[in-house]
Amino acid sequence: MKRWQDKLRKIDPYIPGEQSDAPNLIKLNANENPYPPSPRVQKVLSEACADQLRFYPDTNGRNLRSALARRFGLKPEQVFLGNGSDDVLALAFQAFFASNQPILFPDITYSFYPVWCDLLRIPFERVALRDDFTLDPRAFDRPNGGVIFPNPNAPTSLSAECSVIEDILQHNQDCIVIIDEAYVDFSTFSCVSLLEKYENLVIVQTMSKSRSLAGLRIGYALCSPELAAVLESVKNSYNSYPMDTIALACGTASVEDEDYFRETCSKIIATREHSAQALQALGFTVLPSQTNFLFAKHKSQRAEAIFNALKSENIFVRYFRIPEIDNYLRITVGTDDEMARLLRTLQHIL
Amino acid sequence: MKRWQDKLRKIDPYIPGEQSDAPNLIKLNANENPYPPSPRVQKVLSEACADQLRFYPDTNGRNLRSALARRFGLKPEQVFLGNGSDDVLALAFQAFFASNQPILFPDITYSFYPVWCDLLRIPFERVALRDDFTLDPRAFDRPNGGVIFPNPNAPTSLSAECSVIEDILQHNQDCIVIIDEAYVDFSTFSCVSLLEKYENLVIVQTMSKSRSLAGLRIGYALCSPELAAVLESVKNSYNSYPMDTIALACGTASVEDEDYFRETCSKIIATREHSAQALQALGFTVLPSQTNFLFAKHKSQRAEAIFNALKSENIFVRYFRIPEIDNYLRITVGTDDEMARLLRTLQHIL
Repeated sequence: MKRWQDKLRKIDPYIPGEQSDAPNLIKLNANENPYPPSPRVQKVLSEACADQLRFYPDTNGRNLRSALARRFGLKPEQVFLGNGSDDVLALAFQAFFASNQPILFPDITYSFYPVWCDLLRIPFERVALRDDFTLDPRAFDRPNGGVIFPNPNAPTSLSAECSVIEDILQHNQDCIVIIDEAYVDFSTFSCVSLLEKYENLVIVQTMSKSRSLAGLRIGYALCSPELAAVLESVKNSYNSYPMDTIALACGTASVEDEDYFRETCSKIIATREHSAQALQALGFTVLPSQTNFLFAKHKSQRAEAIFNALKSENIFVRYFRIPEIDNYLRITVGTDDEMARLLRTLQHIL
Repeated sequence: MKRWQDKLRKIDPYIPGEQSDAPNLIKLNANENPYPPSPRVQKVLSEACADQLRFYPDTNGRNLRSALARRFGLKPEQVFLGNGSDDVLALAFQAFFASNQPILFPDITYSFYPVWCDLLRIPFERVALRDDFTLDPRAFDRPNGGVIFPNPNAPTSLSAECSVIEDILQHNQDCIVIIDEAYVDFSTFSCVSLLEKYENLVIVQTMSKSRSLAGLRIGYALCSPELAAVLESVKNSYNSYPMDTIALACGTASVEDEDYFRETCSKIIATREHSAQALQALGFTVLPSQTNFLFAKHKSQRAEAIFNALKSENIFVRYFRIPEIDNYLRITVGTDDEMARLLRTLQHIL
């Protein structure tokens, strides 16, 4: 062993969904949006002047923060921007989970949470979901250094009732509670309205899913001005310019096009609903999704076998080799045509 | 005090150079490039298709890594990409400075180093520069958890001799040595050729200065495949997609236009040299810069007074309220016209 090797960090990283360049591929494994971003984003790109890139970006992202503040009825000082919601969450872990007590999150959830805890040396405990994958608010009634859960949850696709979330908030007022709303735009309600009532609440959202901007890396947190200032100081201790000039401009253009946003979200929800019914007709149990993906298991065929069979037909879905959910598939909702091809292929396989 | 406040992180962030929207401003305070990026970058932007943005970026940045590898005569596995060199450096601190021994860096240097140490809880010791701001290799001869220094150094603008750097490397083979080459393209030599000889060497560069792409946030590390893999695993534990699709494409286009790159760097170096002479004629001592900025003090006027006088004339330069250097100005090299206006204004002020 070389003597400098003991100074290196050893860590198990997060593993993102598989990528492939195969032609004729149907990519239903990364919860990407099947529709292009708002036409206003194309306009920003086509008209962008390269000369502006010689300057550092606006570190305060004023235009995008104002646009988001207007959309949510908040003040710009309540909006914090980051390089994708993963960046926002990683900074929020550093900003808000700085005690020595373990933070709490569901045992079946976004697999990046324990990775950030390991990297940032934050103690954590996993809180068991009920057998039907719903959130038990009583499971969070224990001393902790913070709480985080996605709503809707991933990969289960389930949303908790608003009353369950308020119950968790009411019983966790001594710590910061982060609700990761990556999929909320495909759901029936957001917790943004709870910000008025709970000053220890932080909501994180992303433009990667509902706004078709995964390729630009735009995420944000909504919270009290006080908590946003803490996030800002941690950000400025890590990377003062996490968002680039083009991403800021495209994100702003997207937020300002509410009509297009609603239209594409509605299309995905409609496709989701009839795809879920079609999957049930093929013998799948499909959880009642509030997201842009379906979480489903088949009555007789193993998920891994279906996953591999689909892959050999150039249809990529997501399969997790995790005990409690290793008989489920996570299937991103694509266009109607893509879902029709998926369903035909499944019919053939099963 | 609210009970959740003791779980928040308290930290002193890095403070970037002042920004202003004033018209007719000459901005010589952030070491930005006065020339636009390669025309190929404009072409990438103008032809970019927004539809591609609905997909996550290539997490491996294959095209950009290959382009950089070709340019430096390295293998793509020796190139690590990040969201600006600040992101690369922050990840490198986490990846390589994981022992309990203090890391070493010069006492006058990039002010982000101690900020990352505080944020990431890495012990550090500052190593004194000589009175003339040159690097003393013997100062690094002590037990340490790693070494980092910029070459050329900022804000002093000085480059060490190659022999001094090799001396430091030879005496520090039990740790990772990072050389931060943010300004190297305005200098006479890079340490990239030393990578063959020192497997514990990591070189970090940026496209923000010499390639006029500060607005896109592109940085990279060059090192052994083994160390690049460690950086990659830490990156994938923090944010799997730090670079967006547009930045990757524009960065690749820039690297492939070597002629334009050399031409603009040469212009800046020529402007630097005659501006330095003109400043000396006005009574300034100017350090022999190997960067795109000049570090200068006046024989009779205080730096802070000159800084404020220039500001009131809409010329922004950088002034540091740091004891050893609080009588110096850091002046970014602009176009010949901008430098002529700076010099006229200085003549008027002094």
